[in-house]
Amino acid sequence: MSTYKLHYFNGRGRAEVSRLIFAAAGQKFEDIRYESSQWPSHKSEMPLGQMPVLEFDGIKLPQSLSIARFLAKQFNLAGKDNLEQAKVDTVVDTMVDGMAKFGPIRREVDEVKRQADMQKFLVDELPKHMQNLEILANAYSNGGLFFVGNHLTWCDLFVYDMLENILHVDSSFLSRYSWLQRNRQEVEQQPNIAAYLKSRSQTSF
Amino acid sequence: MSTYKLHYFNGRGRAEVSRLIFAAAGQKFEDIRYESSQWPSHKSEMPLGQMPVLEFDGIKLPQSLSIARFLAKQFNLAGKDNLEQAKVDTVVDTMVDGMAKFGPIRREVDEVKRQADMQKFLVDELPKHMQNLEILANAYSNGGLFFVGNHLTWCDLFVYDMLENILHVDSSFLSRYSWLQRNRQEVEQQPNIAAYLKSRSQTSF
Repeated sequence: MSTYKLHYFNGRGRAEVSRLIFAAAGQKFEDIRYESSQWPSHKSEMPLGQMPVLEFDGIKLPQSLSIARFLAKQFNLAGKDNLEQAKVDTVVDTMVDGMAKFGPIRREVDEVKRQADMQKFLVDELPKHMQNLEILANAYSNGGLFFVGNHLTWCDLFVYDMLENILHVDSSFLSRYSWLQRNRQEVEQQPNIAAYLKSRSQTSF
Repeated sequence: MSTYKLHYFNGRGRAEVSRLIFAAAGQKFEDIRYESSQWPSHKSEMPLGQMPVLEFDGIKLPQSLSIARFLAKQFNLAGKDNLEQAKVDTVVDTMVDGMAKFGPIRREVDEVKRQADMQKFLVDELPKHMQNLEILANAYSNGGLFFVGNHLTWCDLFVYDMLENILHVDSSFLSRYSWLQRNRQEVEQQPNIAAYLKSRSQTSF
């Protein structure tokens, strides 16, 4: 019986997509969370000195998206064949493109600059990526509410988690993207996801 | 019989890893290249208005890494099981991290600033990522010269192609990373790759 341990900080961050995959699959795992103060003494235990790290049967894997894709394959949430998996990957990559400028802006320490940059991001940058996601959904979803193949895959969970960060900044932006909004509702209504979202700990990031 | 068409500009850029995968697999494909002047009239033919795009049995897939991973799976160059594929993905993601700042620097139009930023990149940024690649190779390669599982996978080809960009800027930097240097030689010596490298067109990017 394989065992899974996920090492990360005490936050959603780059680990949450993997936690959502575990939840959707109903798969038990050890959710190991480090407070910032504990991290320096654990950094050397991680292959690249960074987290998340997945420990799977004793092997330590770094890189959040590689971890998520691996887990999705293990639990049949990656797409049912090579082509479906490729479609799922294009959705993930398009969401990554959309978030590329978000992290640096959120970490900006100058409050005035951060607010101005964030506004610019929401108006000038994000819409084209949201439109790109809807273009892919239109091509792949067969008229359904999941991105690919009429069933839940990890790209639905990844988009769900990334958009949560945007919604914290602008709670209404999704109203302009009706398919994405309905996809989000569909993800939230999956019984395993609904139960997880209700019970997960609230963290500051 | 499946057919493959790869749409991109007339350069290596974000399409070359897929061309290397086709070459390694000995798989025929249609290598469709657009000059910059032709691109505006073809942009609307691409799902997200960007390239590369892979046309596979009539479906158009965007996103360079999604395309490459799909092709690698089709031709058994992605790793033989979920865990090998995850290891391959971590190498790719680690190389992507290493190149994140390279593109913007190379596109900097101020010559003096570009040279200063590039020097800083080579000295302060790139080494830690090269060390990370060697850490992963040490964990995955079983003492061999391929990153994962003692056989060629697409992460060897991706690292090969990305490092070519660095070598154009600093032809000697790889001498400090002996495993990466030997891996590079091993990739170049694969008969299908050697033949491809000899015959491919020389382009400015």
